Amino acid sequence: MALPPSPLAPSSFPELPAIAGVTLRTARAGYTRRQRFDMTYAELSEGTTVAGVFTKSRCPSYEVQLGKETALLGHARALIVNAGNSNAFTGMSGREAVETIIARVAHHLGCQPSDVFVSSTGVIGVPLPIDKAEAGLAEVFTAQPCGWVDAATAIGTTDTFPKGASASAVVGDATVQLAGIVKGSGMIAPDMATMLGYIFTDAAIEAPFLKEMLDRANGRTFNAITVDGDTSTSDTVLVFATGKTGGPALSDWDDDGADAFYAALEEVCRSLAHQVVRDGEGAQKFIEITVTGAESDESARRIGLSIANSPLVKTAIAGEDANWGRVVMAVGKAGEPAERDLLSIRFGATEVAAKGMVVQGYDEAPVAEHLKGQDVAIGVDIGLGEGSATVWTCDLTHGYISINADYRS
Amino acid sequence: MALPPSPLAPSSFPELPAIAGVTLRTARAGYTRRQRFDMTYAELSEGTTVAGVFTKSRCPSYEVQLGKETALLGHARALIVNAGNSNAFTGMSGREAVETIIARVAHHLGCQPSDVFVSSTGVIGVPLPIDKAEAGLAEVFTAQPCGWVDAATAIGTTDTFPKGASASAVVGDATVQLAGIVKGSGMIAPDMATMLGYIFTDAAIEAPFLKEMLDRANGRTFNAITVDGDTSTSDTVLVFATGKTGGPALSDWDDDGADAFYAALEEVCRSLAHQVVRDGEGAQKFIEITVTGAESDESARRIGLSIANSPLVKTAIAGEDANWGRVVMAVGKAGEPAERDLLSIRFGATEVAAKGMVVQGYDEAPVAEHLKGQDVAIGVDIGLGEGSATVWTCDLTHGYISINADYRS
Repeated sequence: MALPPSPLAPSSFPELPAIAGVTLRTARAGYTRRQRFDMTYAELSEGTTVAGVFTKSRCPSYEVQLGKETALLGHARALIVNAGNSNAFTGMSGREAVETIIARVAHHLGCQPSDVFVSSTGVIGVPLPIDKAEAGLAEVFTAQPCGWVDAATAIGTTDTFPKGASASAVVGDATVQLAGIVKGSGMIAPDMATMLGYIFTDAAIEAPFLKEMLDRANGRTFNAITVDGDTSTSDTVLVFATGKTGGPALSDWDDDGADAFYAALEEVCRSLAHQVVRDGEGAQKFIEITVTGAESDESARRIGLSIANSPLVKTAIAGEDANWGRVVMAVGKAGEPAERDLLSIRFGATEVAAKGMVVQGYDEAPVAEHLKGQDVAIGVDIGLGEGSATVWTCDLTHGYISINADYRS
Repeated sequence: MALPPSPLAPSSFPELPAIAGVTLRTARAGYTRRQRFDMTYAELSEGTTVAGVFTKSRCPSYEVQLGKETALLGHARALIVNAGNSNAFTGMSGREAVETIIARVAHHLGCQPSDVFVSSTGVIGVPLPIDKAEAGLAEVFTAQPCGWVDAATAIGTTDTFPKGASASAVVGDATVQLAGIVKGSGMIAPDMATMLGYIFTDAAIEAPFLKEMLDRANGRTFNAITVDGDTSTSDTVLVFATGKTGGPALSDWDDDGADAFYAALEEVCRSLAHQVVRDGEGAQKFIEITVTGAESDESARRIGLSIANSPLVKTAIAGEDANWGRVVMAVGKAGEPAERDLLSIRFGATEVAAKGMVVQGYDEAPVAEHLKGQDVAIGVDIGLGEGSATVWTCDLTHGYISINADYRS
């Protein structure tokens, strides 16, 4: 089932720069019946460092389990992404498929198996067919190099548009480039989709510092979005640094250009994360929730996600209903420090409730006008401390039910 | 908007016994425009003990805040329930309305204000109008006593059927009776509904022991249900023991009849909790989720609720789709100890997955047949320990979106 593009999709795929040391190729392994490229291969130059963040699911795929270990070694030469089959909960045969892919790629490049990263996304519980993977590899090794939009399309499953973002930063004497692609639109029936993100840069960055920067950016971007609160068994974000711009590798926040690089990395991560929300299942509105005045940033993030995951808040926004009582409810249930009488709530630029009750002379008209738009902003001030966070989600509509309940897997 | 009865509603309201020492009356305060009784008054004989459990929301109504304190004193003479306005997040004026109601009732009965319990349910953020409350009280004090079905109807908001349950137990030489009523069907638009439950017994039970029994029963019944994961600002369950059967009051688990009484109390709580789920917004199927083999009962309950709150699991059941991968996902995201390769999953009587993969020779036919029914059972064995729990929920359908997004508040 191919869905029409989300109403929140950008008008076109962005121009992304080539990244020195990265070569992309795609092929058709045939994991599903759809006539599409479903295997993506990124070849990385020698000396590429890597850092990753992975799902916290206790039932992860073997790809995730292995990737967590090998990412710690910090070296990468290749990435393979299989689309249409998540290979999760597939026991030993799923594991063998991954080991086979890694062995073939390592042999092809003459590199260590631990330099090869594999992700799979799609339906859970069906072992990845080894014969199809091998056929795909044979094809992808000899395919013509392709562009970002091709790779962004090939890693998708039921995504309704390809997603990419780029940024640059001045590090030392050089301008370094970052380009990233991501797939995901929640967990999609009939397949269970996942979020996979890959960011590439020609900067030189030592792996431990790359990991530190990725963790920070991830907490503020990918870990601050939600479509339906359901966490996949395969979520993965990897960042690869080829170092092709030369110069000394960044290894610390005090290094010249580290702040600039981090800002560029966070910008790419945020853009990719927003695009996932904008492709949320059934999404009609993009919702930004800003929480301030919490006891800590982490507390603010939890409160923000409690609001962002509330079906009642999400359906109210879908109905363009200024039902701020549901926001109060979601703050109250978050389990984080909050005081009813210190709380204030804003929709768009309009404060609607403060000091434990609706504001004096509340006029719903500007709020109703704001809620008619495609981009909705909710602000919550807890009134207790200095902690703040911003999270993003989409509304909950009949489209979500149709996608997830009306079609059989 | 009056909705038709839920397809999961029982065919009729059950026969409930009169409870000696309890007199019920209803009246119309006029909190909403609907022509209906919206104030319920239960008068309790002298010597009645009480125990309560309340929402853990950090933004509770003043009714909840005050009830938490007065329930600890253990004495009750009256209960007033306002339906159509939750009086939550209404600042000082909401508080004054509650104080006024309590003062009027205490004066009427010649009792302490702390013996009067008030609950309110309905829209958040609109102060309870004191004049309407006073008019309702004047009417309800002189109204003819009514039956359980009248009270169960009057405490409802957008419930689609009245809910009640009873049980009896032999305590010492006497047979004691329990009768309970409850309202709630999730959090309902255009009003924000809540769960309120009241259980009455003619047994004599000391308040601290009554609280201990209620806490235990609550954890296994009301705290084990979910419609949409959204916790209201007003949830309350109170149990009142008039002691009219005479004999020494129960004060300890070792007392003769304590186990029998507890079993009866849990039975009433479970029946009422199930009726709330059966009136879940848009519900077409009643889902029982049993988790075994967890590290602890609490861990099992959390895993069960992670499954029960997953929109992807709930939409799969709505679509009669044997998508067990979504159950794996929900176990994985629960944050509780679990091992992918020890997990097994059952739909109805059929094991579908075990040891980290689908079972050999899996036949979907009996599972598909089971999912066509109104009552669906999901079993999950974690394979780690002895902890177990059962939780209940309903499916997530277009009806939920229609109720919560298509109509404006």
